[in-house]
Amino acid sequence: MVLDGRPTAEELRSRTRRFQGHLREQGLGGAVLVQNVDRYYFSGTMQMGHVVVPADGDPLILIRRDPRRAAAESPLAVEPLESVRDVAARVRDRLGDIPSPLGLERDVLPAAQLDRLQSLFPGVPFGDASRALLLTRAIKSPAEIEAVRRAGRLVAEAVAEVPRFLREGVTELELSALIEFELRRRGHGGLIRTRGFNQEMFYGHVFAGATAAAVSFLDAPTGGAGLGPALPYGPSPRPIGRGEPVSVDLVGNVQGYLADQTRVFALGRVEEVFAEAFEAALAVHEAVLAEARPGVPASRLYDVALQAAAETPFAAHFLGERHKVGFVGHGIGLEVDEYPFLARGFDLPLAEGMVFALEPKFIFEGRGVVGVEDTFAITAEGVERLTTSPQELMVVEE
Amino acid sequence: MVLDGRPTAEELRSRTRRFQGHLREQGLGGAVLVQNVDRYYFSGTMQMGHVVVPADGDPLILIRRDPRRAAAESPLAVEPLESVRDVAARVRDRLGDIPSPLGLERDVLPAAQLDRLQSLFPGVPFGDASRALLLTRAIKSPAEIEAVRRAGRLVAEAVAEVPRFLREGVTELELSALIEFELRRRGHGGLIRTRGFNQEMFYGHVFAGATAAAVSFLDAPTGGAGLGPALPYGPSPRPIGRGEPVSVDLVGNVQGYLADQTRVFALGRVEEVFAEAFEAALAVHEAVLAEARPGVPASRLYDVALQAAAETPFAAHFLGERHKVGFVGHGIGLEVDEYPFLARGFDLPLAEGMVFALEPKFIFEGRGVVGVEDTFAITAEGVERLTTSPQELMVVEE
Repeated sequence: MVLDGRPTAEELRSRTRRFQGHLREQGLGGAVLVQNVDRYYFSGTMQMGHVVVPADGDPLILIRRDPRRAAAESPLAVEPLESVRDVAARVRDRLGDIPSPLGLERDVLPAAQLDRLQSLFPGVPFGDASRALLLTRAIKSPAEIEAVRRAGRLVAEAVAEVPRFLREGVTELELSALIEFELRRRGHGGLIRTRGFNQEMFYGHVFAGATAAAVSFLDAPTGGAGLGPALPYGPSPRPIGRGEPVSVDLVGNVQGYLADQTRVFALGRVEEVFAEAFEAALAVHEAVLAEARPGVPASRLYDVALQAAAETPFAAHFLGERHKVGFVGHGIGLEVDEYPFLARGFDLPLAEGMVFALEPKFIFEGRGVVGVEDTFAITAEGVERLTTSPQELMVVEE
Repeated sequence: MVLDGRPTAEELRSRTRRFQGHLREQGLGGAVLVQNVDRYYFSGTMQMGHVVVPADGDPLILIRRDPRRAAAESPLAVEPLESVRDVAARVRDRLGDIPSPLGLERDVLPAAQLDRLQSLFPGVPFGDASRALLLTRAIKSPAEIEAVRRAGRLVAEAVAEVPRFLREGVTELELSALIEFELRRRGHGGLIRTRGFNQEMFYGHVFAGATAAAVSFLDAPTGGAGLGPALPYGPSPRPIGRGEPVSVDLVGNVQGYLADQTRVFALGRVEEVFAEAFEAALAVHEAVLAEARPGVPASRLYDVALQAAAETPFAAHFLGERHKVGFVGHGIGLEVDEYPFLARGFDLPLAEGMVFALEPKFIFEGRGVVGVEDTFAITAEGVERLTTSPQELMVVEE
């Protein structure tokens, strides 16, 4: 089923049932979903429309454009919607009444869209379904995990080509272009979807030395110098020099599912400090994984990472130097910033089926970044690694 | 100045003055801008923070991350912001009071962010600054137009390579990957920023024959079959056959500025109907351009396009077959969907400095799409074309 990326009806129903449990817990009568990824997650189609999920009973999938395509894509019953103005009447017809309070995707729904929904559902009290959604989506099915695994394999295939591309004088941008081509021709979906407001990503970040260590506005441990003030992160036009740590941070995309991996390369030997910091990153990685199993709060993994980093000589550089980010990992799936966050105070217990990227990185401003990042699934016993490139600092000799 | 993509202080001040005029017209006391592109437009930096523009006086640029980088990027005075909680106090200190009503980017600001701003500015009445913003950004400076022109040249360089890549059996995805590589290695910025909720784009759309004509959820005349239900637009894995019209719709990105162009290729001769429809698209293009000059309502260009298309044998296929989109063009700049829209009822008069993409296209479901798209600037006398590939149906013989 996962092979063509289409969830089964049974899987979609299971997602809906879990979501309904969370909706009831939050005191919501149901939810109306309009954002692309959320609609897709429950319906199997991203065609435009409204997915209305009551706290009990079957969801209603109303598609304005294109209903014919939606019917071919979704294993569930899909109903055409002639005009957006009909939404409330259609919901009332099919569900008896409008679910109330009606949960919205308040974390991503623009204010103007909120006004529009209020005019489509006059007098209906609204609530926030964001947390119920994120909790539901945090638990991946075996088919979803297989899609992430495939995205991890895609990244590994492209990363295996890096030694062929890494030559003295190649710019960060050229190296990025070569790697992106390897990803894309193998079926990378292109977009890296983000949920956080103002967060952006293009394939990931390939950069080296001082430009890799440039602080950016992104909520990520590394940002990079980028191509200019309107493109202020990611690769720069600077040629990569010998001995610089080259951070190859890539997000695969297979059928919309993402896998996040970072590896470090170098043209010739790196300074000792970088080699040691790379080992320190591996040590933090191992310390965190030793704690990762169902029932452990996600925040505990962040605390363990900080403790492990404090035992290295590089604590001042961990997760940033002047600006430290407040997490060492993030859930990932259809979007790159899902639950759980491995962050201070994020006390959600880990559970089987959660998938997250763990990225202990050390940033040396003006000099370079090293670290390691892999994507893991929580299993009954612990973790399974879904990204598969060898975990070593890979020195390329010309 | 434009060469490194950095707007001058003078240009930023001029943008602010125009915005202030629109704010006053809309009865707003000022605006607080938090979205990446809007902040960049007025400050010259995309670093994270708040740009507060009073209806009179200088804007306040408060940067939380990274203030040092923001100071290097912006030609204006930038002030560090330690904590978001300080925003209102800082605004009061510098401007005497909080501008009121305070305009927000309601078209893009998520509801949860709106709540956050309300808590940061307790008791302050909010308004909507979206229209004032879009009206301001609709008028491009000569430096902005030059950036779009450079994005157009970038696209033309990649398009010139298409005859080398177009071989029988090459898939839409492979052709896309090859073209994207040509764009990227020359400095394409990657992201195509969209303003519309749920709108997405990855470089543009390269596809052929029946898969090119697949209806998608995107608000665009063509969508394509894509790679699966979670990636339901753009190129598919289908091999391109002889005689199929190949639509090469690409968006360049130079220093954040976009240019949109579509050309049609074919491996060997296309069916007569496609050749004729391509000529019809050129005729619509010409008819619209003959009317395009300052003072003419944008909607008039849409009406002219419909009239011109009605005089061809292909009116039923114009801008869609089952689902027609309601516009024949769209403003473009830092985002791909800016003012003016060449759409029914969009009566904003064209003005010197406006930049838009015009895309008369004919869709034959199950068979293919043909059309032409170029990006134009409105000049004092009429229009200047900013995308430069030859406007012909390019037949490639192996």
